Amino acid sequence: MVIENIQGPQDVKDLPQETLPTLAQEIRSALLTRGSVHGGHFGPNFGFVEATIALHRIFNSPVDKIVYDVSHQTYPHKMLTGRVQAYLDPDHYDDVSGYTNPKESEHDFFEVGHTSTAISLALGLAKARDLAGGKENIIAVVGDGSLSGGEALEGLNVAGELTSNFIIIFNDNQMSIAENHGGMYDEFTRLRQSHGTDGHNIFRAMGLDYIYVEDGNSIDSLLEIFETVRDIDHPIVVHLNTKKGKGYGPAEADPEHWHWASPFNVVTGEQRSYSGESYSALMGDHLEKIAQFDKKLLVVCTAVPGVIGMNPERRRRMGLQYLDVGIAEETAAALISGAATGGAHPVWASSATFIQRAYDQMFQDISINGSAVTILAANGSVFGGNDVTHCDLSSIAMVSSIPGIKHLVPSNLEEYFAMVDWSIKQDAEPVYITVPAGPVVHAPKDQQIRTDYSQLSWELVHEGSQVALIAVGDFFGIGQKTVEKLAAAGIDATLVKLLFASGLDTATLNALAQTHDVILTIEDGIVDGGFGQRVAGYLGTNSSTKVLVRGFERAFYDRFKASDLLEEARITPDKLTEDVLAVLNN
Amino acid sequence: MVIENIQGPQDVKDLPQETLPTLAQEIRSALLTRGSVHGGHFGPNFGFVEATIALHRIFNSPVDKIVYDVSHQTYPHKMLTGRVQAYLDPDHYDDVSGYTNPKESEHDFFEVGHTSTAISLALGLAKARDLAGGKENIIAVVGDGSLSGGEALEGLNVAGELTSNFIIIFNDNQMSIAENHGGMYDEFTRLRQSHGTDGHNIFRAMGLDYIYVEDGNSIDSLLEIFETVRDIDHPIVVHLNTKKGKGYGPAEADPEHWHWASPFNVVTGEQRSYSGESYSALMGDHLEKIAQFDKKLLVVCTAVPGVIGMNPERRRRMGLQYLDVGIAEETAAALISGAATGGAHPVWASSATFIQRAYDQMFQDISINGSAVTILAANGSVFGGNDVTHCDLSSIAMVSSIPGIKHLVPSNLEEYFAMVDWSIKQDAEPVYITVPAGPVVHAPKDQQIRTDYSQLSWELVHEGSQVALIAVGDFFGIGQKTVEKLAAAGIDATLVKLLFASGLDTATLNALAQTHDVILTIEDGIVDGGFGQRVAGYLGTNSSTKVLVRGFERAFYDRFKASDLLEEARITPDKLTEDVLAVLNN
Repeated sequence: MVIENIQGPQDVKDLPQETLPTLAQEIRSALLTRGSVHGGHFGPNFGFVEATIALHRIFNSPVDKIVYDVSHQTYPHKMLTGRVQAYLDPDHYDDVSGYTNPKESEHDFFEVGHTSTAISLALGLAKARDLAGGKENIIAVVGDGSLSGGEALEGLNVAGELTSNFIIIFNDNQMSIAENHGGMYDEFTRLRQSHGTDGHNIFRAMGLDYIYVEDGNSIDSLLEIFETVRDIDHPIVVHLNTKKGKGYGPAEADPEHWHWASPFNVVTGEQRSYSGESYSALMGDHLEKIAQFDKKLLVVCTAVPGVIGMNPERRRRMGLQYLDVGIAEETAAALISGAATGGAHPVWASSATFIQRAYDQMFQDISINGSAVTILAANGSVFGGNDVTHCDLSSIAMVSSIPGIKHLVPSNLEEYFAMVDWSIKQDAEPVYITVPAGPVVHAPKDQQIRTDYSQLSWELVHEGSQVALIAVGDFFGIGQKTVEKLAAAGIDATLVKLLFASGLDTATLNALAQTHDVILTIEDGIVDGGFGQRVAGYLGTNSSTKVLVRGFERAFYDRFKASDLLEEARITPDKLTEDVLAVLNN
Repeated sequence: MVIENIQGPQDVKDLPQETLPTLAQEIRSALLTRGSVHGGHFGPNFGFVEATIALHRIFNSPVDKIVYDVSHQTYPHKMLTGRVQAYLDPDHYDDVSGYTNPKESEHDFFEVGHTSTAISLALGLAKARDLAGGKENIIAVVGDGSLSGGEALEGLNVAGELTSNFIIIFNDNQMSIAENHGGMYDEFTRLRQSHGTDGHNIFRAMGLDYIYVEDGNSIDSLLEIFETVRDIDHPIVVHLNTKKGKGYGPAEADPEHWHWASPFNVVTGEQRSYSGESYSALMGDHLEKIAQFDKKLLVVCTAVPGVIGMNPERRRRMGLQYLDVGIAEETAAALISGAATGGAHPVWASSATFIQRAYDQMFQDISINGSAVTILAANGSVFGGNDVTHCDLSSIAMVSSIPGIKHLVPSNLEEYFAMVDWSIKQDAEPVYITVPAGPVVHAPKDQQIRTDYSQLSWELVHEGSQVALIAVGDFFGIGQKTVEKLAAAGIDATLVKLLFASGLDTATLNALAQTHDVILTIEDGIVDGGFGQRVAGYLGTNSSTKVLVRGFERAFYDRFKASDLLEEARITPDKLTEDVLAVLNN
């Protein structure tokens, strides 16, 4: 195999040009085999194999600097920059992360898991180069899906004013994660159909030079073009027409399904699917039902419709009541505020980590205006994404820093549904709901599900004495088990379900403080800015009740096992029991 | 006067067309008189007088809905929608806010003080209309400066896919607050020069229909065009070529200076200027000096260069070491991360409230990457902006919710300089510095100014007993006065200066807890997520020390007097002393 001997870009340069298609073939084959066993981002990599080879052949990485957007299309790049073992040897599959990672290689400049970033990050490298009087090439690689995001569009505009070398490789594979959304994409189609000559060209309208590559999967074309633009003295966009999933039939045929793939059967293309219930699919069913009687319901997604089970068929059936704005979280937030002001009942769903993109819009456009919107934030839990760029343990703190937003956190499916139902109906305030993570938990048969969340009041699940536990969301089960452990130690602890992660139920808190020696707070997030500290602050001048705050340290966590993190943070029934007893006996 | 009799849009419609120029003249005259006495946003309103008249004559507000971007160009709109007294009668000048305000009028749909919002907000109104089967016109008014912002660009793209009525009025007055920045602005110049025919047209590249109005200050042209686009069945951009400050010589000649004006002399155009020292001007001098020996220093602004005294002459002198990216906070944050990675020493300055726009970029692009950037956040204080959309009391909580960023808060000029000096030199971590607000406070002669902020350690200013005060930034003076009051009450209180608003100095805190009965925390921000709660959380299981947390309730505050808010929150030396004594004696 050719690829086995590639230790770095120099080896790519040393290959005879006629060997490059073989190299491409071997990269695809490795991606396919690894993907079938390991899963991961799939389609984005297949379309960019040839371009990656050509980049490393023409440019001189790491002196020339290539910055990848999202960076989940960098598996070929990793293979060509000294990390090929991680793609050939199953024992080393986990040696590399799913994104560029400066800790892995000098050819990676940023750890990037959010999209639309490459142009702006690379602009910084270009400015630093210009200040230092350097001459190296700065190259930003962006996917078409990324271009709808504000950070990318702002970056294009700023790039248009640069007067030095700057190369934007636009990998136009005609797909975001799901379809692309927005007016620019029809114009990109026209650009492709006109071989790059159509007048409606967003890059030129931003003041950028532009060149079109008809076959972005042809190594020869790419080598020629990259040679032309190397060392160029001004910013230019190189528009590559590529094919997502190129070279693997099932992925070419259904690129949305193959954007990120579970382990799969190479021959049939059948992905190992999760057969149990999921919060996402169940919420999809639920919202579709609501849409049938509430014609004001407007479901908004931002390129990750899967988090609420908005599959293609359902999207079609929802008609006008469904809107995917693409990667455009700022617009989504403002749009739902506008929709609520216009009398609609908007629900925006995304991953918690992406909703961060709209912090200011939640603050200003939504919350100052008191717009009755519903935001569903998935994976904002230690049981959600486990790589550093997608793990969001900050949402409780983040939402609490914005006045006026009510943050609800359900601990089971029925509460989740009830909160969504209530929020859609009310017209008084913005509501941010954390979607439960992990396997579906159902409410116990005897649980009376609350239907009204207008008044902030915590739920007293069990009234005991001495010790009170306050637990939130996915950690409520841990709270329950801890109460059992404490019972075994002879303590009949009180158990409170928080439900509201912003604000305080001071009536309940005052009552608890009067009758308990210790209050233990357990939250699925960082302690700084969390509800535990809020409880402690409120009871700061109360000397008869101690508050033991449990959550995660304010830090970044990468590719962790949730159980390890919980152990380390002492958030297990055993450790919590131990710590409560220690405080009691102190 | 014509204008005195305008109670609402119907009165505008009832006027003979030949009277409209008189109305425009009277609006300008009122703006000029009021502005000279009262100050406020000035230039943006002068260019949009005729368009506002034409909008209210052709469209049927509030059934047709006009949404203004930033909304500081809405004084003429306010005059035509029942609020003219606030512009004619000095006794009523303060009856209206500086922005659209639904509480003031049914013709205002949103309270908006941040820019780039109108398209996305209006898209929400359009979706709500479409769901309800309505037919009214939805109109978004955007200024040219707003268009560089991600939220506006995302919105344009989403608008490009809409298939129903949507009218974007692009008020191209060729100016943001300072100059416009980015490649699109050269293309706008070409568009104007070519009377709207040039091929490089960002609106068409986003899939939008487009029409150009040569004289955007001609009422007749505007009436004709608005008549044409009224009830249009698809999205269209109406590009108005207008003149910022139109009709007032000094403002036409120096539009940056007249974007927001202090009270001024109408005849000479001389604005009443603040003659004392200011943190902004002094930091401008300071950064310019640093730039002369540190050639890696890169100062980045986002359309509000004034917050660090980057006036036009200084900007020119800084050359390559100064960059204004326009209204593009997301790009600014990513760009400084890239610049730091490339070896530069980047400093980005803006108002704290606008820095919110880059929450995700601070989290992902900067902090996960550990980029050694310096962010200067102005007005993040109760003494900063006092209207709800510009007042930022959340920055301590916001920054603390992002792992990895160090938040420094100086309490005087010398500390501010020292923190900036240290941050620029270090290459280990991202640093967010709150710029002091209000009149300049100098360090006492005998203060040893710390030069190294790498280790998080609080400053013990005075060691006493029983009571310890921990105060931050602009509130340090309040802490000092409270210590004096307590001394008068016989208590020799310890005084600690925080300096670090993120994280905890646990060594100092443990020591304080051992020797004090009460710790009082005083912070210039909301209590939720603040450092007081963090202190309380840390000491939650310590029963010998009480923690009294003082800050503001998590709420929105609008057009307040700082002294009122402080009184209400009990953050005055008298009230704090009273409360500490109560806790001590409890």
